[in-house]
Amino acid sequence: MTHTGDVSPDEFRAVAHAAVDWIAEYLEHPERVPVKSRVAPGDIRAALPTSAPIHGESLDAMLRDVQQTLLPGITHWNHPAFFAYFANSGSYPGILGELLTAAINANGMLWVTSPAVTELEQVTLDWLRQLMGMGDGWFGQITDTASISTFYALAAAREAAGLDVRARGMSGRSDMPTLRVYCSEHAHSSIDKAVIALGLGHDNLVKIPADADFRMRAGALDAAIRADIVKGYRPIAVVATVGTTSITSIDAVPEIAAVTKMHGCWLHIDAAYGGVAAIVPELRHILDGVDDADSIVVNPHKWLFTPVDCSVLYTKRPEALRQAFALLPEYLVTRGQDDVVNLMDYGIQLGRRFRSLKLWMVLRAFGADGIAERIRNHCELAREFAGMVHYEGGWELTAPVPLSLVCFRYAPDGASEDRIAQLNADIMERVNARGLTYLSHTKLAGKYTLRLAIGNIRTAREHVELAWRELRDAAAIVSAM
Amino acid sequence: MTHTGDVSPDEFRAVAHAAVDWIAEYLEHPERVPVKSRVAPGDIRAALPTSAPIHGESLDAMLRDVQQTLLPGITHWNHPAFFAYFANSGSYPGILGELLTAAINANGMLWVTSPAVTELEQVTLDWLRQLMGMGDGWFGQITDTASISTFYALAAAREAAGLDVRARGMSGRSDMPTLRVYCSEHAHSSIDKAVIALGLGHDNLVKIPADADFRMRAGALDAAIRADIVKGYRPIAVVATVGTTSITSIDAVPEIAAVTKMHGCWLHIDAAYGGVAAIVPELRHILDGVDDADSIVVNPHKWLFTPVDCSVLYTKRPEALRQAFALLPEYLVTRGQDDVVNLMDYGIQLGRRFRSLKLWMVLRAFGADGIAERIRNHCELAREFAGMVHYEGGWELTAPVPLSLVCFRYAPDGASEDRIAQLNADIMERVNARGLTYLSHTKLAGKYTLRLAIGNIRTAREHVELAWRELRDAAAIVSAM
Repeated sequence: MTHTGDVSPDEFRAVAHAAVDWIAEYLEHPERVPVKSRVAPGDIRAALPTSAPIHGESLDAMLRDVQQTLLPGITHWNHPAFFAYFANSGSYPGILGELLTAAINANGMLWVTSPAVTELEQVTLDWLRQLMGMGDGWFGQITDTASISTFYALAAAREAAGLDVRARGMSGRSDMPTLRVYCSEHAHSSIDKAVIALGLGHDNLVKIPADADFRMRAGALDAAIRADIVKGYRPIAVVATVGTTSITSIDAVPEIAAVTKMHGCWLHIDAAYGGVAAIVPELRHILDGVDDADSIVVNPHKWLFTPVDCSVLYTKRPEALRQAFALLPEYLVTRGQDDVVNLMDYGIQLGRRFRSLKLWMVLRAFGADGIAERIRNHCELAREFAGMVHYEGGWELTAPVPLSLVCFRYAPDGASEDRIAQLNADIMERVNARGLTYLSHTKLAGKYTLRLAIGNIRTAREHVELAWRELRDAAAIVSAM
Repeated sequence: MTHTGDVSPDEFRAVAHAAVDWIAEYLEHPERVPVKSRVAPGDIRAALPTSAPIHGESLDAMLRDVQQTLLPGITHWNHPAFFAYFANSGSYPGILGELLTAAINANGMLWVTSPAVTELEQVTLDWLRQLMGMGDGWFGQITDTASISTFYALAAAREAAGLDVRARGMSGRSDMPTLRVYCSEHAHSSIDKAVIALGLGHDNLVKIPADADFRMRAGALDAAIRADIVKGYRPIAVVATVGTTSITSIDAVPEIAAVTKMHGCWLHIDAAYGGVAAIVPELRHILDGVDDADSIVVNPHKWLFTPVDCSVLYTKRPEALRQAFALLPEYLVTRGQDDVVNLMDYGIQLGRRFRSLKLWMVLRAFGADGIAERIRNHCELAREFAGMVHYEGGWELTAPVPLSLVCFRYAPDGASEDRIAQLNADIMERVNARGLTYLSHTKLAGKYTLRLAIGNIRTAREHVELAWRELRDAAAIVSAM
């Protein structure tokens, strides 16, 4: 056969083999590179040509450029001492899955355009559901990020309110009450973005005060909803969080579910980071009450060793998602397959990568026990680190440690809040600049707080101990400045 | 060093090398498998365990399962005789890029969390902009699909209308006029979905009649907008299409831009499939007038040999996207980098794969000339096929062929519309079931029409000729039934 050509198979073979060897070498020793990139803004851009080549170049040259030119501009999420934000892991089975996904390059927009894409996604998400101890009756789909998963959930909630927003919209309608959504003051910014994007208005996202342990209070939620109803507002949805971003606090889902049920609101659970911890038998309780929710998001690309991107949205009411999104133009009509799931009906995206393959491989490669062991180990390391902080003079924990994140800070006796904030910002900057470990920060009730988030599959005790040495050394230096 | 472990590097090396060899072999002979999967609904699911394993399994077993169990459930978008929907290609450089993206596994949510992710994305999209002959002043970002790109563009348009939808929303506001959006009757369903998701209401998407060549008429658009203004509606955006999904017709962007400018509407261009054809010098005119638009979407994962997913949204008004979406919670604040682009500010998603790597590799591997040659060749093949149809008795073209898609049908003399629709549906079903080639269909002004969409990098004349033989053979058989 003739073709107009591609890169030659032999060139691909040679460079892909070299890439595989480089990847294995890189992932065996990710601690050899500085965890946080040291380039200045514009450095990478300046090192690259300003326009595409006229003639084709060799794959070999590109692999070299990745290694030499781009790698210094990478902040290494693979580094075992990456403790910023929420650490993640692109594990070997996940990388293999992505390689095969790219090669097969199926678009699973309809069942018929690759039945295995739809069916493996459904099977894999059912496996994951069982692993987390959730009951039957959940419909799962993969999206790219938790932000999109939550956006879809709230779009379904808006439609389920029975105001025919789909057809008639919300603008220019005298019969349209002000719709309101509720979440914890510690909920993730993706809730804000979803409410804004849906046209509900940021002012109509009500932030409910948390208790001393940073958990959304069901009583305060109920009171807020009642007050809004009195004002003529229409409460449509509540988002509870299992593992908040700043502190991994866990909202009291069972009590919150009772409130949402009473008021007829959609209950969405943001368990993007924390949800997978329920795979550990003794942590299963973190998802207590979730089976009474309408939807939940968990992100395998955070703490489940799956390369970004991979977020999972489960719902008990898939028909509400269909009602919000399904549309069938003639060019997508298929004959004789009326009973199959076409995943395009459950969201905005039409094109769909074979995203489940990597997750399926991760679940199989580690197995239920292997996953639980690794997540359990992360939580143990977090408790050990918390212990070190707790018993060290001048340092304090700023929140409980229910999972694998520790919130803490350097707070020498007598220092003002402002001074403490400055000291900790300086400590973090110094530690991160040294390149051996990487942390991030937050503020809790006005208190500047450091965060040590354990979630990388290669993180061991030595890396946590290293971070602790780095922090104390930096504290000694910045205190003396 | 110790770690809690992953799959061993040696196991990864061995299986990833085997996967690379298998991929090269599969892509050298993608025509050996039936293009359209022959499994029945539920077959793949039934072949898989109903729950995850307790203990880890070998990568080797998974690779075998992909080849033996899943592959029969794949409809092969890699097949050179894939002519359905819009064909795509996961070319070798794109596959290599995905492999490295998964291994590096950076999350480019902020510039600092991997500067190379943000900067390579900006450099690569600037290359692509130049290749398509677009002027300066465009800000690009990669999203997963055109549906999301268009959704973002219309979200920016909604905010740019100056009604403070971000803060106040649209519900329960007596000062909120009915907002309206306009597109061709042949526009893609992603426009409908975006309008629905934004809470504007499907009823407020006005479909403008097209001319005899299926192009949106600027005069009809202007009249519709004026009529709506008289009724008190507020026109906010128009979507013009360069390469519609059913027929690849090209709306008259310069005239439409004059209308949107006059009425102060946001102009978004949906060039998801067609836009990249502007890389061919003699086709550059398809983007005439686009520099007067506010935003445009093009999809490298369609006709630019890049694995799914990869959509590009360009806008001249990035500040409008920021106004619609930017939010900075404390846990994402970075110090001393106020001047950098943080891509999370331009959309809903926070997490961001290193998606530009594959596109950068594709542009480099083929070069401007290599890309143009391949797209030009696809258009030539489409014209040749159209010629065969045109000169064959009993067959007819149902639309012009501006790019690489041919709309046609079997229409024997004297057959009724109903009979023709049935014949063509039967022809398509028969041809697709044989597994040598795969086509899809649409309806144009009520006429059932077949579509032959050329876009796979391996498609050559022999595959187009094969499709034509298959179609005529099938027509002879179904006519006689």
